[in-house]
Amino acid sequence: MSMMIFCLPGNELLADQLAQAIGATHGELSMRQFPDGESYIRVVSEVKGMEAIVVCTLHRPDGKLLPLLYLCRVLKDLGAVSVRLVAPYLSYMRQDTVFKPGEAVTSVYFAKLLSSFTDGLITIDPHLHRRSSLAEIYSIPSTVLLAAPLVSAWIKANVKDPVLIGPDNESEQWVSEVARDADAPFTVLDKTRLGDADVRVSVPEVDRYMDRTPVLVDDIISTARTMIEAVGHLKRMGLKAPVCVGTHGVFAGTAYADLLAAGAAQVITCNTIPHPSNGIDITALITSALKPRSSVGPHRSNEPTQH
Amino acid sequence: MSMMIFCLPGNELLADQLAQAIGATHGELSMRQFPDGESYIRVVSEVKGMEAIVVCTLHRPDGKLLPLLYLCRVLKDLGAVSVRLVAPYLSYMRQDTVFKPGEAVTSVYFAKLLSSFTDGLITIDPHLHRRSSLAEIYSIPSTVLLAAPLVSAWIKANVKDPVLIGPDNESEQWVSEVARDADAPFTVLDKTRLGDADVRVSVPEVDRYMDRTPVLVDDIISTARTMIEAVGHLKRMGLKAPVCVGTHGVFAGTAYADLLAAGAAQVITCNTIPHPSNGIDITALITSALKPRSSVGPHRSNEPTQH
Repeated sequence: MSMMIFCLPGNELLADQLAQAIGATHGELSMRQFPDGESYIRVVSEVKGMEAIVVCTLHRPDGKLLPLLYLCRVLKDLGAVSVRLVAPYLSYMRQDTVFKPGEAVTSVYFAKLLSSFTDGLITIDPHLHRRSSLAEIYSIPSTVLLAAPLVSAWIKANVKDPVLIGPDNESEQWVSEVARDADAPFTVLDKTRLGDADVRVSVPEVDRYMDRTPVLVDDIISTARTMIEAVGHLKRMGLKAPVCVGTHGVFAGTAYADLLAAGAAQVITCNTIPHPSNGIDITALITSALKPRSSVGPHRSNEPTQH
Repeated sequence: MSMMIFCLPGNELLADQLAQAIGATHGELSMRQFPDGESYIRVVSEVKGMEAIVVCTLHRPDGKLLPLLYLCRVLKDLGAVSVRLVAPYLSYMRQDTVFKPGEAVTSVYFAKLLSSFTDGLITIDPHLHRRSSLAEIYSIPSTVLLAAPLVSAWIKANVKDPVLIGPDNESEQWVSEVARDADAPFTVLDKTRLGDADVRVSVPEVDRYMDRTPVLVDDIISTARTMIEAVGHLKRMGLKAPVCVGTHGVFAGTAYADLLAAGAAQVITCNTIPHPSNGIDITALITSALKPRSSVGPHRSNEPTQH
């Protein structure tokens, strides 16, 4: 069956690269906002009988949901046999339980909604914290791709004598895997959270790493408060200017500028969210999930996969 | 059964007035956006066994949909027996058919989505154009309230010797009803649309109205292009400065300022969308739909109603 790639505004580059890599057409859309803020969507390409792939990374998700739903629904109504979503960054994974009575567990509601208008989900390193699998909340088949090998390869190729530093104990397993593949030692920060945006951090036995280049790694860089604190701490302790690497560069507000201003030698992210810091390309990883099973890339083992 | 009123940010005033009018509690919420743009919602009040009413007018709808869905879902999960939506302005009523092949009929998709997480809808003068009833697309019970009597009463009380001028032939029936109740003559514009934002208009037999105050009326004032053209036309013809009255003041971009700058004597809207132009209060109209059937106000007759 023929695949056709579509994308929401802002995802054109990845959609083009994916279309090229799998030999599919990048389907034509007409999308705009009316002056009153409502969305207009028209599928110009013929999609009848096609397997549609919609590329839409989901940072700042609230404004994207309706256009995405409209696109997926109209593709189906126009005769696409299936509509799968490629969301390199998957939103609403953090509110995964009730911390205070009365809270909306938005990860569950979001998953239910997305599952209601797509036939499959392909994403990279979703923030699975209290959950072990997307299948716990998504009723559609989901494919979780892992960026760790790409992060390791980038560090190995670009940083001399690195020491990897993870943000907290919970990240230890992920950081240890990235470090192993990068042939580098690793540690995690001692972290004390004093408020939403107030975090004190330190590197245990920091003296051991005076001759190495610290590489601060995390799955999501959002406010970057932890990394900014860590950069300051390492600077005060006399270590080299650290390299900051994130899988997903969400960069809330002025986080990116603040991180550079704090003294980071370099800030590098995967292109799961388009951003000037993108230095690690995930196109091939996603391509592996779109191709027939025989050529599938590394997936998290406890996730159901479907192609 | 006890009712409890909730609202999304921006609807506090109407929610307070409704709560007071029907003797219900305005329930407490904690809502905010995380720095990464995701929404947080917590219902603080006890809602178990309550009939929940959520007030959220739906201009600029794309960013509101997820918070609204989350709120309605969590209210239900917390034990509210029903969750009805009061949306004085209902969005996505304009794309009600396929004008060009491949278009998403967003009114249908939006109706389906809203129907999936609410138990009822109360709205005012929805833009029913090719459809005769919300029931054609909404699967939940809907109550359509009519602002025409309030608009008539305002004109009668505030404009001396008015002549009502509707935007086009399609509005003629509505304008004639408003005019009848306001004891005023009416006409509709001769309108030639040259593009999305380019409209030429004129008032037929304009000489007949030289001594009257023109009142330009419409259900929605969005870009206001038609009204601005009409104001200019009336000015050039030597009529008095017109009063502009709209049920829903959406006011895209600088539309409000442009309309005043064009020479409108006054711009008046219903408070279906909070705006400085609000001069006609719809609180009592909505209250009538929330109270037991015996005291229900004027409804469009071909709409199913439910209380």
